[in-house]
Amino acid sequence: MSRNITLEQAENIIGACKAEARAVGQPMNIAVVDDSGNLVAFVAMDDTKLIGEDIAQKKALTAVYFHMDTRDLVPLVQPGAALYGIESTTSGRLVVFAGGVLLRRPDGMVAGGVGVSAGTVDEDHQVAEAGRKAFTG
Amino acid sequence: MSRNITLEQAENIIGACKAEARAVGQPMNIAVVDDSGNLVAFVAMDDTKLIGEDIAQKKALTAVYFHMDTRDLVPLVQPGAALYGIESTTSGRLVVFAGGVLLRRPDGMVAGGVGVSAGTVDEDHQVAEAGRKAFTG
Amino acid sequence: MSRNITLEQAENIIGACKAEARAVGQPMNIAVVDDSGNLVAFVAMDDTKLIGEDIAQKKALTAVYFHMDTRDLVPLVQPGAALYGIESTTSGRLVVFAGGVLLRRPDGMVAGGVGVSAGTVDEDHQVAEAGRKAFTG
Amino acid sequence: MSRNITLEQAENIIGACKAEARAVGQPMNIAVVDDSGNLVAFVAMDDTKLIGEDIAQKKALTAVYFHMDTRDLVPLVQPGAALYGIESTTSGRLVVFAGGVLLRRPDGMVAGGVGVSAGTVDEDHQVAEAGRKAFTG
Repeated sequence: MSRNITLEQAENIIGACKAEARAVGQPMNIAVVDDSGNLVAFVAMDDTKLIGEDIAQKKALTAVYFHMDTRDLVPLVQPGAALYGIESTTSGRLVVFAGGVLLRRPDGMVAGGVGVSAGTVDEDHQVAEAGRKAFTG
Repeated sequence: MSRNITLEQAENIIGACKAEARAVGQPMNIAVVDDSGNLVAFVAMDDTKLIGEDIAQKKALTAVYFHMDTRDLVPLVQPGAALYGIESTTSGRLVVFAGGVLLRRPDGMVAGGVGVSAGTVDEDHQVAEAGRKAFTG
Repeated sequence: MSRNITLEQAENIIGACKAEARAVGQPMNIAVVDDSGNLVAFVAMDDTKLIGEDIAQKKALTAVYFHMDTRDLVPLVQPGAALYGIESTTSGRLVVFAGGVLLRRPDGMVAGGVGVSAGTVDEDHQVAEAGRKAFTG
Repeated sequence: MSRNITLEQAENIIGACKAEARAVGQPMNIAVVDDSGNLVAFVAMDDTKLIGEDIAQKKALTAVYFHMDTRDLVPLVQPGAALYGIESTTSGRLVVFAGGVLLRRPDGMVAGGVGVSAGTVDEDHQVAEAGRKAFTG
């Protein structure tokens, strides 16, 4: 299997996320998936919360599935909005709040996703964003 | 097992949906199910989004389960409405927004459903509708 | 998302499988997945068996997951053999008998898998093999 | 949550496993879990097999659940043996062949588990064992 993202790239992303998580002061769960949503790398920082093990992975997956950051899904899934109820599909693999970001290669092709969980949704997004910056350079 | 829809009919539906998806400019996932909700045919167009693999099939299924287009479910599942929460039933197999349409034979009997996913819900419905027209003639 | 297999290639594979299934006299369920196991195309031939809708897809997935044809898994999963019990893992997504074949590109890279189900395991493999020949040329 | 294993220790284990996997010539999926079976770190090496994403994690979990290496479960789960059928329990989270090893602290307390998957079961065990040696020193 060839991937649009290498393990070395995924580890660099996680390194950047860990640094940002330390700056924020919140130990995080951090996941990187490839362009099909397969897990490439994951870490749970010391003293993080267990809820994030599952959710970090699903945030990364959701970003890849939708070709968008998960925080941009928030308005779309509210009562009355276009995708209301979508989180009940896909065997519970979707997360419809912030903390998952999409990775694109320089040519625009989807490379994968980063998911972060354990802090507030804003903290989670901020830490995931640091990972994306490490990837896109 | 006899079905109210043949594979040839399903393939004609998918052909019409593909043409409409190209006209819309959005590569789609397209599913056709029979009157029991069993999958008859499915395609994922090149460069579509992964989220639609699951959801296209469930939209088609939902149309058959309810004997209605999925977009007509939208007002019924909002907070305070009659079917609020229904998407949590049926092991997550229901989709309660647009993109699934019901197929009926000339005699009115349910023949199956078409589900489309990857664009906006309006695009999805438009592409599914093109498939229905190919079926009903 | 870029795939190592296009929908047009998948449809050619399915066409070849359908022809072989007719020659065998057994209507089949036929699935083609990409190199991550995502469904690219599926058909259920008229008068096939329902059991194959699920199993055809899982055979194709299993071939991709293991980088081998599913019939080659048979000796490995018997009591006392190296992978005995493996079918209980992976949330029931594995099929450990014949009918799933691996697709490789000319450069050797995994392109996807074909899964066929409804006949005997030998018939299933034969029909899947016809699909592989259509792909590799 | 305090764990009996730190992320730094898990990353050292994974580093040792990666080196051994390169020596073996088989890119692996490698997972480290804590003494509750929660995932601490995971990597999928480039060009590995997808089957191992799930199974590596479950091998690590199984070692912790049973307080033993997974290869020692093999004789116990055969037809007629004491734990025949156990892999069907625990929602499919158990793996009953080699590649999962138990980590113990110097005082004998369970610290976690390492799971490796993608090669032969002997290769998987060898690579996991290299991770354990990096932990126990």
